[in-house]
Amino acid sequence: MKLHTYFRSSASYRVRIALQIKGLDYESVPVHLLRGDHKAPAYAQHVGDALVPALETEDGHWLTQSMAIIEYLDETHAEIPLLPRDALGRAHVRALAQMVACEIHPLNNLRVLKYLVRNLGVSDEAKSGWYVHWVRSGLEAFERQLDLLAAEREAAGLPPSLFCWGDTPTLADCCLVPQIFNGRRFNVSLDGLPRLAAIVDRCEALPAFQKAHPSACPDAE
Amino acid sequence: MKLHTYFRSSASYRVRIALQIKGLDYESVPVHLLRGDHKAPAYAQHVGDALVPALETEDGHWLTQSMAIIEYLDETHAEIPLLPRDALGRAHVRALAQMVACEIHPLNNLRVLKYLVRNLGVSDEAKSGWYVHWVRSGLEAFERQLDLLAAEREAAGLPPSLFCWGDTPTLADCCLVPQIFNGRRFNVSLDGLPRLAAIVDRCEALPAFQKAHPSACPDAE
Repeated sequence: MKLHTYFRSSASYRVRIALQIKGLDYESVPVHLLRGDHKAPAYAQHVGDALVPALETEDGHWLTQSMAIIEYLDETHAEIPLLPRDALGRAHVRALAQMVACEIHPLNNLRVLKYLVRNLGVSDEAKSGWYVHWVRSGLEAFERQLDLLAAEREAAGLPPSLFCWGDTPTLADCCLVPQIFNGRRFNVSLDGLPRLAAIVDRCEALPAFQKAHPSACPDAE
Repeated sequence: MKLHTYFRSSASYRVRIALQIKGLDYESVPVHLLRGDHKAPAYAQHVGDALVPALETEDGHWLTQSMAIIEYLDETHAEIPLLPRDALGRAHVRALAQMVACEIHPLNNLRVLKYLVRNLGVSDEAKSGWYVHWVRSGLEAFERQLDLLAAEREAAGLPPSLFCWGDTPTLADCCLVPQIFNGRRFNVSLDGLPRLAAIVDRCEALPAFQKAHPSACPDAE
């Protein structure tokens, strides 16, 4: 299969982590966002929203949207699961992933930042303020959710989580780590977010996360 | 079970549709966003991001994030499924849902519009322009994706879809219809989006969608 990816795209990074955790072979096809490769017909004819990543399956289907792709990989390659076995655990993991993918990331991706500057005439300083505001407040909410889930596990007699939920990385960790990478580029502090920081440290120590890192991509600059 | 909901919240509306399609009984607990009910401790102590909706299960678990809640309902109440049986179909449906939930909706919810006005000093006109831009361009991408999926179905010998994917409503329709409701409030046109408009008409003709409509909520104003 082929992953159409841009090294610095946070959504691409999520899928690269999932592929690495599962140990799946794939061909990396670079889509250079700053050069506009995603809008060229060769790509856009297969992808309605012309965003990255897209997964081209071995039988020629094009799949879009990073979380949907990861769920597909998890369903079609069940070894090393990225979602818990129980419905409640899956609900918690998906909710954490969506706290990143639906609340934080959409507000700080490239096309939104461009619109702020070009269409609304926002200064560089105010743009950075916008970025930091949504990432930091979103991560604070994430930490509060981790607190709530920790209390729930304790009440249920489950051991404390090592990752977002449980003792192995899940879809939630696949979404969290790229968001932290993004945040660092704008100097978003993780001070006062101890659970989150510990999870990110644990993830970043794993080879799967290291191999998926933007700096390890063939198209890295 | 209890759904903590605000009548005009698009994310709450998604879950109400899912509950109605599945014919599940639930108690509706209003969380008045403009009054700030979501930030009051009684609610926020259970919900890390203090957003609506939240589902309180019969055994007292609090679930957050609308798409995660709908997947949970689908897994725990399998009758009248909201996702196709095959992994490829599920990937397509989830991707369509995420085109709304990760690309369109996050840019036009209340807290973002407030930030534009209060923190960036954006005029009412520019705020409306922002809203219309992201909704309209997002729906155009959605229509292109529907075109691609229609071609894929044809190539596979499958009948044309009546809803977003297939002949019954799925998670994707649960997300699309509330987004259209939102867009109408800002006069976003559906001109030139024939597949999407036909799907919305078909959904809105169904009692499940009508019962979930904001105007049918106990807390409607």
